[in-house]
Amino acid sequence: MRFTSQTSSGGVREQLFALGEIPGVLWTPDGATDSRPLILMGHGGGQHKKAPGMVARARRFVTECGFAVAAVDVPNHGDRPRDEEYDRIATENQERVDAGEELAPLIASFQALVARRTVPEWQAVLDAVQGLDHVGAGPVGYWGVSLGCGLGVPFVAAESRVRAAVLGLGGALASAEDAARVTVPVEFLVQWDDERVPRAQSLALFDAFGSAEKTLHANPGKHAEIPAFELDSTVRFFTRHLD
Amino acid sequence: MRFTSQTSSGGVREQLFALGEIPGVLWTPDGATDSRPLILMGHGGGQHKKAPGMVARARRFVTECGFAVAAVDVPNHGDRPRDEEYDRIATENQERVDAGEELAPLIASFQALVARRTVPEWQAVLDAVQGLDHVGAGPVGYWGVSLGCGLGVPFVAAESRVRAAVLGLGGALASAEDAARVTVPVEFLVQWDDERVPRAQSLALFDAFGSAEKTLHANPGKHAEIPAFELDSTVRFFTRHLD
Repeated sequence: MRFTSQTSSGGVREQLFALGEIPGVLWTPDGATDSRPLILMGHGGGQHKKAPGMVARARRFVTECGFAVAAVDVPNHGDRPRDEEYDRIATENQERVDAGEELAPLIASFQALVARRTVPEWQAVLDAVQGLDHVGAGPVGYWGVSLGCGLGVPFVAAESRVRAAVLGLGGALASAEDAARVTVPVEFLVQWDDERVPRAQSLALFDAFGSAEKTLHANPGKHAEIPAFELDSTVRFFTRHLD
Repeated sequence: MRFTSQTSSGGVREQLFALGEIPGVLWTPDGATDSRPLILMGHGGGQHKKAPGMVARARRFVTECGFAVAAVDVPNHGDRPRDEEYDRIATENQERVDAGEELAPLIASFQALVARRTVPEWQAVLDAVQGLDHVGAGPVGYWGVSLGCGLGVPFVAAESRVRAAVLGLGGALASAEDAARVTVPVEFLVQWDDERVPRAQSLALFDAFGSAEKTLHANPGKHAEIPAFELDSTVRFFTRHLD
């Protein structure tokens, strides 16, 4: 794990790092020296580890909860090199949608392909970050919606260090099988008028989680229009389960 | 409006009252003398104005938010006399369910009948309670699930003083038409394994609300098993919209 830069503002230290070929970012409270809960965040499709929504959430988890927060670029996103195979699949999928095929099954199979790489990558990131004195081996939370849900569900299912997860904007077609193996508390976000994930698919994914405590929050609006008050709820959810 | 008793404990003053033939209870902060937000609560079927869940919620609204809270007995409940017509309908409905009829349409038509009485009753209670110095004409919230939703939806639709409502455990069959006329923020509670309200009916009622801000919270469990953390969310919802 190689740190490439460090800055600080408003009580939050931001460290960019590379773990092998994986570019990442770690946010912690300024001056933190000991162990604390850690939230790993997965970004959305076409976004990256430092997209504005990612940074805004990370800063709240750090300043309000005292948590550490880590995020990395998914392959073919952010500071990672173009991946010709993924580009080719994306182009083919677009052609198939243009020719009248349904979008959801194409997204599902693409996310399953990417998850086979990101699950072990994210586990390696957890190992490395938890080895740092100012993070340590405290409880872990996962936050991810849309692509961050498609890649997050198999990660949370595979990784016993994760004790609570906020997921959403994803459907059963992509994730139901892995969701059945998730047993930690889940807060699941649905956009009632989601133009990318059919409502029935979202509800079926919520239904599929194996967790005894799971709570669905649905709000009107399109895929990208999660209301701001849901971040308040997310902060309280992680505080309740990780603190 | 006639007060019949007054007690105080843990910072909460409880006043029993009668408004004509309607028995009610008003909770306010000890020593309150001026205007404040008011929450009207509707109790569930077979319950009454001082059922344990009602008292617990009221105390939190008073102690954490400084609000006033009022509740009255629905006809044929609590301290009100038996109503022969309602009893007869209930007996007939039970016979029809035993003979294989669906429960939901029978509940719907019964609630519509009772609401024709409770909407004007509750409006009269609002008038009276808001006339008191220690309540005043501040913003009003409504809380009610199950029967409290079936009677609450037409009340919230009819009453412009209500600025925000927590509703739930109710279905579209009973309430969709009135729900379309509700435009205030709504937090809507669904029990995912509700044995009384079919899931599709619950989702359809959420869908029917005319509110620009509405949020659905669904949790696993049966009709009466709303998890405790939803009350935390309710407190924050009313604080956000009434304070």
